Amino acid sequence: MNYPNQIQKKTTKTINYSNRGMNLENLINESNEYYVEKDIALIYKKPTPIGISEAVYTEHGRIIKNGYFKAPSTLDYNGIYRGKYVEFEAKETQQKTSFPLANFHEHQLKYISKVLKHGGICFIILKMNNLVYLLKGEDLISFIESSKRKSIPYSYIKEHGFIIKEGYNPALDYIATIDQIYWKGNEEWQRKN
Amino acid sequence: MNYPNQIQKKTTKTINYSNRGMNLENLINESNEYYVEKDIALIYKKPTPIGISEAVYTEHGRIIKNGYFKAPSTLDYNGIYRGKYVEFEAKETQQKTSFPLANFHEHQLKYISKVLKHGGICFIILKMNNLVYLLKGEDLISFIESSKRKSIPYSYIKEHGFIIKEGYNPALDYIATIDQIYWKGNEEWQRKN
Repeated sequence: MNYPNQIQKKTTKTINYSNRGMNLENLINESNEYYVEKDIALIYKKPTPIGISEAVYTEHGRIIKNGYFKAPSTLDYNGIYRGKYVEFEAKETQQKTSFPLANFHEHQLKYISKVLKHGGICFIILKMNNLVYLLKGEDLISFIESSKRKSIPYSYIKEHGFIIKEGYNPALDYIATIDQIYWKGNEEWQRKN
Repeated sequence: MNYPNQIQKKTTKTINYSNRGMNLENLINESNEYYVEKDIALIYKKPTPIGISEAVYTEHGRIIKNGYFKAPSTLDYNGIYRGKYVEFEAKETQQKTSFPLANFHEHQLKYISKVLKHGGICFIILKMNNLVYLLKGEDLISFIESSKRKSIPYSYIKEHGFIIKEGYNPALDYIATIDQIYWKGNEEWQRKN
C-alpha cells in the first residue's frame, strides 16, 4: 500500500529539481490551490503533454516504460474566473535587462493571439529582477509585431506590465491583478474577498 | 531523424487500442481540430495526467523510463467558445438501458458543480444506443442530487439530453448543440458559420 506514495515522493523531487522555473511555478500552484479552496477561481496547470512509446500492465495498474515530452503548443495554465476563460504562461529569467522571446515556442505566440481573438483573458506572468509582472497578451503580441528584437527590454515590461503582489496566502495574488486590469472601474464585478 | 516519428506512430497505436472510448474520442478530437482551423472555438483535450518516477537524459532529450497514470480530478476537454469557458467529458457505454455513474470519479462530479458555479459551460457528451447526446452538467448534477440510483436511466438521457448531429466535417457538431442550448433565442450571439 505504500507503493503509490513512494512513487509520488520520488516524482515530486524529480520534477522540482529539473524545472528551471521552480519557484515561480510553486508560487502559482499554491495560489491556485488557495483560489480553488476559497471558491475564487478554478485555474489549473495543464499536465505536461507526453507521448507513450511503451506501457505495460502491472498489479499497480498501467505503467509507462518509455515516454517522451512533447513541445506544448498552448500555455501552461488555464481555467475560469468570473465566467471568463483565463489562460497564461509563467516564465522566470535571470537576465536583468531583457526577456528573451526564445522562452516561447512559435506555436505558443500564435496561440496567445487566438485566445485573445476568442475573448479570453490571456497573459504571461514573468519573474524578473525579483519582481513578478503580469504582462497582457495584447502587449506581448503588440511588442512582437512592432519590433524585430528577439527579446523584450525590461523597460517595456516595467512600462506595460503590472506588478503582482506577493504575500503569504495567496503567495502570488494574480487574481487581484486581473481584477485591477480587466475589471477596473466596474464595481459590479469587483471581487468580494 | 526518423526516431521521433517512429515513437509517435507506436504511441498512437498504444493509446488508441487501449482506450475504451476510442471512437467517440476520435470524433471529438477531429471536430476540435475543425473548430480551431475555422476559428470557431479553441477546445483541446487535456494531456493525461501522469507522474514520473524515473526520467533519463538521452541524445533525443529527456525520456521517461518509469511513469504512472494519475486519476483525473477535472474533465477531459476544456477551452473557449465566444469568450465563455467550456469544459466537458466524453463517455461511451455499451449499456442500453442506463449509464453507470461509476464512469465518473467522485472528484469529477464535484468539479462539474464548481465549473457551473463559476459561470462556465459544463456538460458531458455521451454515446449510447448509437446516438451521441449532450447532457448539461446541471441536469447531471440534478439527477445525482435527487436520486440514489448508481446509473442514469436512458429515459432520463433521452428526456434531458440534446442529440449532437454527426456528420462529415465536423464529425460531431457539438458547438451547434451548444448554440442551440446556451444561446437559444439570442440572435446577436448566433454562430455565423
